[in-house]
Amino acid sequence: MSYKALQINAPKPWPHNAWYQAAWMNEVSDTPLARTFLNEKVVLFRDKDGNAHALEDRCCHRATPLSLGDVVDSGIQCGYHGLIFDGDGKCVEIPGQDSIPPQAQVRSYPIVEQQEIIWIWMGDPAKADESQIIDFPFLDDHENHPHGHALMEIDCNYMLLVDNLMDLTHIPYIHKKTIGGGDQKGQVNAAMDVSKTDNGVHYIRWMENIMPPPTYAKGAGWGPEVKVDRWQEFEYVAPATVLQWTGALEHGRNAKENRNQDGGWNTHIWHTATPETETSCFYFWASTNSYKPADTEETKKLHEAISFTFHEDVSFLEQQQACLSADPDQVLVDIKHDVARKPARQALERMIRTDAEEMAVAAE
Amino acid sequence: MSYKALQINAPKPWPHNAWYQAAWMNEVSDTPLARTFLNEKVVLFRDKDGNAHALEDRCCHRATPLSLGDVVDSGIQCGYHGLIFDGDGKCVEIPGQDSIPPQAQVRSYPIVEQQEIIWIWMGDPAKADESQIIDFPFLDDHENHPHGHALMEIDCNYMLLVDNLMDLTHIPYIHKKTIGGGDQKGQVNAAMDVSKTDNGVHYIRWMENIMPPPTYAKGAGWGPEVKVDRWQEFEYVAPATVLQWTGALEHGRNAKENRNQDGGWNTHIWHTATPETETSCFYFWASTNSYKPADTEETKKLHEAISFTFHEDVSFLEQQQACLSADPDQVLVDIKHDVARKPARQALERMIRTDAEEMAVAAE
Amino acid sequence: MSYKALQINAPKPWPHNAWYQAAWMNEVSDTPLARTFLNEKVVLFRDKDGNAHALEDRCCHRATPLSLGDVVDSGIQCGYHGLIFDGDGKCVEIPGQDSIPPQAQVRSYPIVEQQEIIWIWMGDPAKADESQIIDFPFLDDHENHPHGHALMEIDCNYMLLVDNLMDLTHIPYIHKKTIGGGDQKGQVNAAMDVSKTDNGVHYIRWMENIMPPPTYAKGAGWGPEVKVDRWQEFEYVAPATVLQWTGALEHGRNAKENRNQDGGWNTHIWHTATPETETSCFYFWASTNSYKPADTEETKKLHEAISFTFHEDVSFLEQQQACLSADPDQVLVDIKHDVARKPARQALERMIRTDAEEMAVAAE
Repeated sequence: MSYKALQINAPKPWPHNAWYQAAWMNEVSDTPLARTFLNEKVVLFRDKDGNAHALEDRCCHRATPLSLGDVVDSGIQCGYHGLIFDGDGKCVEIPGQDSIPPQAQVRSYPIVEQQEIIWIWMGDPAKADESQIIDFPFLDDHENHPHGHALMEIDCNYMLLVDNLMDLTHIPYIHKKTIGGGDQKGQVNAAMDVSKTDNGVHYIRWMENIMPPPTYAKGAGWGPEVKVDRWQEFEYVAPATVLQWTGALEHGRNAKENRNQDGGWNTHIWHTATPETETSCFYFWASTNSYKPADTEETKKLHEAISFTFHEDVSFLEQQQACLSADPDQVLVDIKHDVARKPARQALERMIRTDAEEMAVAAE
Repeated sequence: MSYKALQINAPKPWPHNAWYQAAWMNEVSDTPLARTFLNEKVVLFRDKDGNAHALEDRCCHRATPLSLGDVVDSGIQCGYHGLIFDGDGKCVEIPGQDSIPPQAQVRSYPIVEQQEIIWIWMGDPAKADESQIIDFPFLDDHENHPHGHALMEIDCNYMLLVDNLMDLTHIPYIHKKTIGGGDQKGQVNAAMDVSKTDNGVHYIRWMENIMPPPTYAKGAGWGPEVKVDRWQEFEYVAPATVLQWTGALEHGRNAKENRNQDGGWNTHIWHTATPETETSCFYFWASTNSYKPADTEETKKLHEAISFTFHEDVSFLEQQQACLSADPDQVLVDIKHDVARKPARQALERMIRTDAEEMAVAAE
Repeated sequence: MSYKALQINAPKPWPHNAWYQAAWMNEVSDTPLARTFLNEKVVLFRDKDGNAHALEDRCCHRATPLSLGDVVDSGIQCGYHGLIFDGDGKCVEIPGQDSIPPQAQVRSYPIVEQQEIIWIWMGDPAKADESQIIDFPFLDDHENHPHGHALMEIDCNYMLLVDNLMDLTHIPYIHKKTIGGGDQKGQVNAAMDVSKTDNGVHYIRWMENIMPPPTYAKGAGWGPEVKVDRWQEFEYVAPATVLQWTGALEHGRNAKENRNQDGGWNTHIWHTATPETETSCFYFWASTNSYKPADTEETKKLHEAISFTFHEDVSFLEQQQACLSADPDQVLVDIKHDVARKPARQALERMIRTDAEEMAVAAE
């Protein structure tokens, strides 16, 4: 499979054998929640014992969405003729009928709840290996890393969002009125230290002995005389997640040797973009206040500021998608700042290739 | 043609050589009415003598909808350049032009007005046999069977509506807050007496010596001590009509031998679903007050109550269609309660097969 | 290529090697303007020196619309990662990158500004011959021919608008409540003097010694006793422009020999319909007050009256397009009054044929 084949409009622009974020844990309750992932309609619900489940959102009898039904003691009940399916997708009751044929079932998707996230496995359940789930312990540590979380539905291919995060030179342009204000060239020219990982790419940018951005200074309580060592660290984990750690410490505190010091300013940001269709995705994100964790007002302000910035990206991503959809085959030109974006796409390409081979073997 | 081929997304999911309800008689006047049936744009209008006509809604000159024009003495006049077509679709005037070429015509559809209904024949006019039109005399008997009528435009294949009426076990689920309240299992388990007819299927359900539903008791004026023999009788007539007779008489009055007694509670309901496209239809219905025909307030209340109930079905039907459209080839699982629905589909299948053969012969 | 192949849904219903109106001059400024012509996304902008340019509206780097960016000193800058393109589409800056690869460019379209119009050439730039641009000097003569101009976006193929102007017998029908009121047959039967031109068709209709329309009489200040010689002159210039001169002089002033006399009533109207897609267009028009040029109030009133009339056409054109799109292959019937419309279509057909041959040669 060539790089070309990875383009947006390729037949399968995602791996199936992979964990994706389906929801935040607190979104799923005993009121069914309908969502589409990878073009498949899924219903998420929590059973009477509080366990979350994900089933095909289509009754096997007459194709009615199960999300129109109700959670009952033994599972989820179709709202049309009353068939009940348990959390494994097995039909456990057909009203008025004594025996239940074995084909009366709907597809069930493996689910894992961990660190505020509900993960869903969209491929072969036999391959669903929980050890592959990304660990992001900050989401479980509300004392030291309090945070808000969010979901944005964006009309673009999920990888356009990953691309965006893999090239921060967009900041002085898209965000020129907010976080990217000031010296455009200086921001563009910050050196990138990029390295490939087994399943993605990692990079860090250091800016030493510089004036902190106003938001940092205000959050940290720095006066105008303070200079800082600032870092932006990103890791893409295929297929759809980017882990970010951004911050600064006063110059002289040796941040480069040890960033885990009290004070200063820093946030851990969770980004993941679950494909809905080829041209739309669910963007889940959360940002921690890891510098003044006891200050709940600061936690709220940080969330709002980051939310505002992310909304600036949305119109670009959606119009970029519209251009790509209008003319998907036109060749694009890579530039120097694609240095992290390109290996990220290549990591995804490898994953899709492996996925296609596994599915081909499974089909034999 | 297999049963599979009858599925929603098959190329021709309807017979052309058939009568369909185009409108209620009082909908059609000398103001042109545009409607699409079986994917064909039709204009309905009443000429100066009061006769209804149905023409292709597209001028043969420059393809402008005739429904944008006006009814004039000699027919309907295109609003763009003034061509006039008579009720047979023949062009009878081209402004400023002396002779009218024979090809200047639009398609005309056979029309029959009967029992408040305007019927349209969408196939070969030579085969339009009025004797095939369904007789439902209640709509003409305002003294004994007063009623209101309605039209609902639903975004689903017309047969999803017929399916709905062929399996009443949906009542305790979709309508659990209205007519299906109370004992779900009891309603589901009522015995069905199903028989095939020449062009459809007939079934009746009897519930003897039971408490009447609250709506029945209220309408009939029964006290809490009254028990009744209750019936639900349905007949599907291919391609698109369901005739319903539902009611109850006090237990002991031998309803099962003779339902045509004064008093009690009963309604005759007309249902027909004319295809607009493969995934949308016009649902025409009317329900008679056949138990207190002199009580006009009761007639109105009954109509409103039934209308409310039918609206509960709509979101199910439309979301069911969305599921089918998203994945039309996935196999469905029949259950016991499809006992009337399946022969109804088979009757339609026979009709479509015959229709396809007739059209093939006509094309030779 | 047959006449049939020219129908709306033919693969290429327009010539590429042709000038089209892209905008009115005063629409284009240093704020980028996004428009689609012939299915191609274009950004129009005026550089810091005031020169207008038209580029492909898609950055060669990541396919973001350039219209989301800003005009800067050296050209237009992409709002995503800051690449700058000059007016010829050449990338002149990639932030943070020393060398610019030659493939870093976007398509540039030849532009000419003339007589208030920005013309764009959508085909092979080497063939862009400015001498082919239509001369309509009235738009440059504000003293003798003051006027307003307008743009209407219509959901129809551009040729449906040309068709409309080539057959004025629509006036007593579509405009029966405005300019077409009164004697329908009289208006329909006015004699047409039609002649083919090298690249279109010309016609003139004379109505001699008649009562002027109320709008004319009011504008000219004529009392009820005045009779006039009235003319309607139209020229279609392929692919998309119609030049109109309509007016009247008092009977006895020998209008037929010399229409360029002071007084009376007359307007020159510019019409051009630039294709956006196969089923939508930009309709640019302007109408001069050539009878009372010093009366600015009259100029404004004339513009408003004509605008009202043109809006009457829009719903017909859009519904005509809907009918054609629903059934593009159905044969239409020509009538006597297509006497100018048919050669107009033939002129376009010749132009498209020539265009296809040129493109085939270019591709060899």
